Amino acid sequence: MSSTTSGSNAAPRGRQFFFNPGPTNIPDRVLNAMNRPALDFFSEEFLPILARTHANLKTVLRTDQQLLMYASNGHGAWEAALVNLFKPGDKVLLLESGRFSASWGDMAAQLGLEIELLAADWRFGVGMDRLTERLKADRGHAFKGVLAVHNETSTGVALPIDQIRKALDAAGHPALLLVDTISSLASLDFRMDDWGVDIVVGGSQKGLMMTTGLAFTGISRRAMAISETGGARRSYWNWKDMLTHKPQRFPGTTPVHLFFGLDESVRMLLEEGLDAAIARHTRLARAVRAAVAHWGEGAKSSVSIGAKGISGPVKAIELLPADPARASDSVSAIMVPDGHDTNVLRKVAVQRFNLSLGGGLGPLGGRVFRIGHMGDLNEPMLLGALSTVELAMRVAKIPYCPGGVTAAIAALDV
Amino acid sequence: MSSTTSGSNAAPRGRQFFFNPGPTNIPDRVLNAMNRPALDFFSEEFLPILARTHANLKTVLRTDQQLLMYASNGHGAWEAALVNLFKPGDKVLLLESGRFSASWGDMAAQLGLEIELLAADWRFGVGMDRLTERLKADRGHAFKGVLAVHNETSTGVALPIDQIRKALDAAGHPALLLVDTISSLASLDFRMDDWGVDIVVGGSQKGLMMTTGLAFTGISRRAMAISETGGARRSYWNWKDMLTHKPQRFPGTTPVHLFFGLDESVRMLLEEGLDAAIARHTRLARAVRAAVAHWGEGAKSSVSIGAKGISGPVKAIELLPADPARASDSVSAIMVPDGHDTNVLRKVAVQRFNLSLGGGLGPLGGRVFRIGHMGDLNEPMLLGALSTVELAMRVAKIPYCPGGVTAAIAALDV
Amino acid sequence: MSSTTSGSNAAPRGRQFFFNPGPTNIPDRVLNAMNRPALDFFSEEFLPILARTHANLKTVLRTDQQLLMYASNGHGAWEAALVNLFKPGDKVLLLESGRFSASWGDMAAQLGLEIELLAADWRFGVGMDRLTERLKADRGHAFKGVLAVHNETSTGVALPIDQIRKALDAAGHPALLLVDTISSLASLDFRMDDWGVDIVVGGSQKGLMMTTGLAFTGISRRAMAISETGGARRSYWNWKDMLTHKPQRFPGTTPVHLFFGLDESVRMLLEEGLDAAIARHTRLARAVRAAVAHWGEGAKSSVSIGAKGISGPVKAIELLPADPARASDSVSAIMVPDGHDTNVLRKVAVQRFNLSLGGGLGPLGGRVFRIGHMGDLNEPMLLGALSTVELAMRVAKIPYCPGGVTAAIAALDV
Amino acid sequence: MSSTTSGSNAAPRGRQFFFNPGPTNIPDRVLNAMNRPALDFFSEEFLPILARTHANLKTVLRTDQQLLMYASNGHGAWEAALVNLFKPGDKVLLLESGRFSASWGDMAAQLGLEIELLAADWRFGVGMDRLTERLKADRGHAFKGVLAVHNETSTGVALPIDQIRKALDAAGHPALLLVDTISSLASLDFRMDDWGVDIVVGGSQKGLMMTTGLAFTGISRRAMAISETGGARRSYWNWKDMLTHKPQRFPGTTPVHLFFGLDESVRMLLEEGLDAAIARHTRLARAVRAAVAHWGEGAKSSVSIGAKGISGPVKAIELLPADPARASDSVSAIMVPDGHDTNVLRKVAVQRFNLSLGGGLGPLGGRVFRIGHMGDLNEPMLLGALSTVELAMRVAKIPYCPGGVTAAIAALDV
Repeated sequence: MSSTTSGSNAAPRGRQFFFNPGPTNIPDRVLNAMNRPALDFFSEEFLPILARTHANLKTVLRTDQQLLMYASNGHGAWEAALVNLFKPGDKVLLLESGRFSASWGDMAAQLGLEIELLAADWRFGVGMDRLTERLKADRGHAFKGVLAVHNETSTGVALPIDQIRKALDAAGHPALLLVDTISSLASLDFRMDDWGVDIVVGGSQKGLMMTTGLAFTGISRRAMAISETGGARRSYWNWKDMLTHKPQRFPGTTPVHLFFGLDESVRMLLEEGLDAAIARHTRLARAVRAAVAHWGEGAKSSVSIGAKGISGPVKAIELLPADPARASDSVSAIMVPDGHDTNVLRKVAVQRFNLSLGGGLGPLGGRVFRIGHMGDLNEPMLLGALSTVELAMRVAKIPYCPGGVTAAIAALDV
Repeated sequence: MSSTTSGSNAAPRGRQFFFNPGPTNIPDRVLNAMNRPALDFFSEEFLPILARTHANLKTVLRTDQQLLMYASNGHGAWEAALVNLFKPGDKVLLLESGRFSASWGDMAAQLGLEIELLAADWRFGVGMDRLTERLKADRGHAFKGVLAVHNETSTGVALPIDQIRKALDAAGHPALLLVDTISSLASLDFRMDDWGVDIVVGGSQKGLMMTTGLAFTGISRRAMAISETGGARRSYWNWKDMLTHKPQRFPGTTPVHLFFGLDESVRMLLEEGLDAAIARHTRLARAVRAAVAHWGEGAKSSVSIGAKGISGPVKAIELLPADPARASDSVSAIMVPDGHDTNVLRKVAVQRFNLSLGGGLGPLGGRVFRIGHMGDLNEPMLLGALSTVELAMRVAKIPYCPGGVTAAIAALDV
Repeated sequence: MSSTTSGSNAAPRGRQFFFNPGPTNIPDRVLNAMNRPALDFFSEEFLPILARTHANLKTVLRTDQQLLMYASNGHGAWEAALVNLFKPGDKVLLLESGRFSASWGDMAAQLGLEIELLAADWRFGVGMDRLTERLKADRGHAFKGVLAVHNETSTGVALPIDQIRKALDAAGHPALLLVDTISSLASLDFRMDDWGVDIVVGGSQKGLMMTTGLAFTGISRRAMAISETGGARRSYWNWKDMLTHKPQRFPGTTPVHLFFGLDESVRMLLEEGLDAAIARHTRLARAVRAAVAHWGEGAKSSVSIGAKGISGPVKAIELLPADPARASDSVSAIMVPDGHDTNVLRKVAVQRFNLSLGGGLGPLGGRVFRIGHMGDLNEPMLLGALSTVELAMRVAKIPYCPGGVTAAIAALDV
Repeated sequence: MSSTTSGSNAAPRGRQFFFNPGPTNIPDRVLNAMNRPALDFFSEEFLPILARTHANLKTVLRTDQQLLMYASNGHGAWEAALVNLFKPGDKVLLLESGRFSASWGDMAAQLGLEIELLAADWRFGVGMDRLTERLKADRGHAFKGVLAVHNETSTGVALPIDQIRKALDAAGHPALLLVDTISSLASLDFRMDDWGVDIVVGGSQKGLMMTTGLAFTGISRRAMAISETGGARRSYWNWKDMLTHKPQRFPGTTPVHLFFGLDESVRMLLEEGLDAAIARHTRLARAVRAAVAHWGEGAKSSVSIGAKGISGPVKAIELLPADPARASDSVSAIMVPDGHDTNVLRKVAVQRFNLSLGGGLGPLGGRVFRIGHMGDLNEPMLLGALSTVELAMRVAKIPYCPGGVTAAIAALDV
């Protein structure tokens, strides 16, 4: 047999199953929309694309207030929100949820803000009682803003943003409410205007099914008014300069190709219907959790998690979020029994079966793997991924109870 | 809620799972290779692409004899073989296997050949003893050719081509051996030269992972010699005219884009290795059959199948091929219990879950569904499809034993 | 300087200017339309695409009679027309125009027809008087068909199809009128029904702006009736079998990707408007001829051309067609002075400037170059090509009068 | 005639000729490289792409010092340079060249720097004597940096960066040299290390032939050392945080698709050879200037240009740069006679002939049009554009001397 016919099995065959929690699957329609020549960004052909994307994205945020976009990733939108609203020395309250709340706090500190962390077990996220209490205690209204991550991508814990608003209202606290929706938008129910959110931070590459490179902030009228006279020194992120054109101007060149893609992906989302898309995420997430529960035979450990990692022994496969009401519908973090390494599992999955899974971040490295189930996803894609997780656990010798996929199929409300 | 946010769930979300037995999944690399401007087909840029595709395709056929390609689908290559070798009135022996052997016979009859059908139960295909016997009985060597379909796409029954060659040899019969490999090439083991095949008929759109539009014949030296003085009136398919250039000339315009694609898809195949690709098909097919057996709890009916359809009652899900040695590794036809309609199942699968399955052809319409598992396929794709078949059977109320996917996972030899 | 920065100028930079007379430029929209996964060709998603392409293509042919398509190139459609209508021994009259009329005649001869050639100087094509005369002389109506190439791609001479119909009528001759429109459709005015054309032979890869691989015949009711009882033995091309489904069935697999592309390209054509597209071809062709006349300073040689080539000396650059009324609006063949080789010119053009031009075919090899100006073309594309021809003539030392492009600009009726 | 065949000529046919000075033409190879699914940005498949792009881009900058990239457009890279090196109150010297030097100054002012403008006529840019003089006068070395735009995109004037370095050296001035190469890199000769440039600011969307969305800074060792203890408050742009991984980490998600594209475009550039690419720009720019000179019959007005616009009457078409040694090889700004509006010309060009040209910026609006001739460009593309400018001037009734393209062809050194 010649070498060309015996070959090597170097690259796994078939399409990669991409179940990272960001970036996510990009539909062919979106990639094709980007596969075109450039346009003059001031041309009559491009400006309607910009305007339509703006308008449709506001529909996705459920807002009729302001939206501004940036040639950046989501961290850029974080920074834009901070520098347009706060000056060095301003104090903000940061609700701990995991790795990404910590990063946002680090950024705020680098920019000179004073951060107070409202600490929480990562398996639960901050309780509303403690939040209300802390806000009430801030009688002088030292906090200029409250920073919350709607869906903590590192843990799969989702915070109840509407209740955070209620806590602010109950405390009569005027702090601005800033919410990171990077991994929740278009996947979990979110209502900027109804919930009184002042700043929505979002990015193109997760529920919006696009490549990375565009980010944005929804901005309430109150936040916009504050930015007009306040904030820190800024130029690239400066809202005022962007508002000289409708719907907005970019500092420098407008990234037209990224708009070609986002225009298409947001249209696909609205064709499906935002409610329908969110219901789909709810339905599929339930199947994931049914599989996980089956693999671990319903194990409930008593471990807690914080910046130092997992507090005690994990004996069986178990979902990281301990409060079912806060289990995310867009990403699931899964703990494996002590003595097993999720990076081995992930390597088997991707190298042998072409399934890409998320790993544990920071203190959860090796102890947790994550399944992103947001964006362009349907039943066969998800069930194929869950089946292959089961297969990879077998190969990686991680103890599990077979039949998780059968449980997932049974849990699908169809 | 506005209409844009509530929306309708018209188009199922996510990538379609395409499990028809042809055309099949086309890798992004192949589609991208076709996404380029045209080339002059006599240019120095194009001619090496033509030559390389020829050479690589001969590697896939495992031949060092002749190969000629046509701007047509597989039926064109069937016709090319017949008109270059036989003249009206010539007699050929057709081995019955199902819908496609019948079609090939119909074509031969339209072209004026005299057909003798060696009949067989579609669940088994022709037995080698009967073939040997019939060949021996043809003392005058009236049969100029024997026509066999390697892998009958309508039933999932594969014939042992090497044994057909042995039967010809045992009978000392000089008939040419013509084999349709349209749904077997690059999926099942096939060796043109080792097995003494005179004509290999193939197409681009199945195991070769390309779009439809290119077809080809492998041609033995003996067949080529016969064509030089024999055959019927012909022009578009005329081998002689094609051989005026190396590796070949096309009548009219060469379809350069189809070569851009086939060049890439065949290179992908050789990068994986032909042996590795075939082993992958074997491995995945075993998983399919494990799932089917589990769904039907190992049912074995005694029905037979022919041009009039299924002979008796089917009580549980069951694989159509009754001889495990002949169950195809590239397509599986599955019978469902009497009173259930596979077209309902297929409609549920495609409309609700975006999974496209093959139906039953001709007399098997509504009684059988088919899973194509050839070409660009990996474990998560296949397991996702099997899971969704299980889900769709639940919705379509076809009786089955849950857990087929778990059985498939267990059957994967990894 | 490192080797990576000094580099080599191997591949010419920038987009190739593709001015071959087929295949032609394929719009990005069309290539993108093909860049998608396969579909089941009997699915509810595909069938409307097939039906729409059929309907729109009939609009392009300006017919409400029958249209049938083939997985083949244009030569396949030629063969389809011949085998469905004529049987071996039938006599047809072939109007000489150049290389392609000769090829069609060769095909008819291979299929057993008896051909009579109505000879003509290739610079003019057949005169209508001689045609009428010959038809009248055929008192017994031995000719079953008249074969004409609307636009002879090898010479850039267009025949007046409406006048051919008038000649048939004037002679009271019942022969079917078969017209090859491969390089005229959607570029030159053509009206199947108004002009009483019985068979229109077309392909996807020229004025229709698509890749090669789909061909078709428009079929008059009279031709269809004749085919029902007549014609030769046939299967792949058999109209009767195709008509079992609406709008048609394919023998074997339907080439769905080719339909994805043709559907889009024909829609683009109808968006522009067929009349507008033809007017654009007229306008651009005038510019080409103005440049050619300027380069040759209006030279008019007295050479004639036939199967043996050019009859005498060519002293300056000159358009091949000698009758302005028959100069094609889709392709221009240009003679260069004796002693100069157009293949040298073409090599300079493509290798140094990335401009691909057509060469002289058969007896015109090296003596003629051809500019295809059909399909997806606008002023900058054409003027860029003409400028570069001028530049390449300078490099290849072909004598010419500079300023052809300025003349072309002046000739553009804008 | 039915409406579908008569149609409207709404969208101009054929490929748009894109001659804006940024973004520029993106090769199909680059667009295709981006047309693929996402990858985990920490995967073994992606990291080599990141590393290769870094290494190759350093080759393009001709540096072996540091390079860092940003998910932003070029303005982001400007800001990154400023905030990592300077703190509010620091003084920098800005060399006036046109609209973009002004914008960079505005940004620096917003970030709190103190700007001194070294004013200059926009037709010439700053003279080296005045620069040397000013630097020598700064005995206390108050200037921490000198900001220069290599190629001023608004005017087509290129500054001699090597001479600016010499001026700094001659004055013994330690200010950092920051150079904007956004519209010069890979088009004009540029040598970061040889010329002692401390900061190179670049973007993906011009000479690098990519979409907008990636920007970068080359950073000298001295600049890096200064940033380690200096600079302003920063997070998104913070070099220190990026250097925790090799070649770098991104704050937030790495924009993998933009790297897929840039990796390919930079490879194409190095395949051609950086020197060859620059020589090609030189050759093509000469043809542009020959056409412009011909159109204006060599007019030389005595107008000067500054922030208030053009100082006096322009009587004929004339190149904006008055010093031939500083005429840019990547973009040409062209003045039209008084009383004519370049926006009318541009509208004719794009709407009737599908040629997109740049307009005059700021005070030059309506008085100047610009031809971008950088990136993926060859002779037919450029000559097609110049021909169409000539055609559009005729339609827009702008006085010109016909034959500019003929002059361009003659000027091409081939």
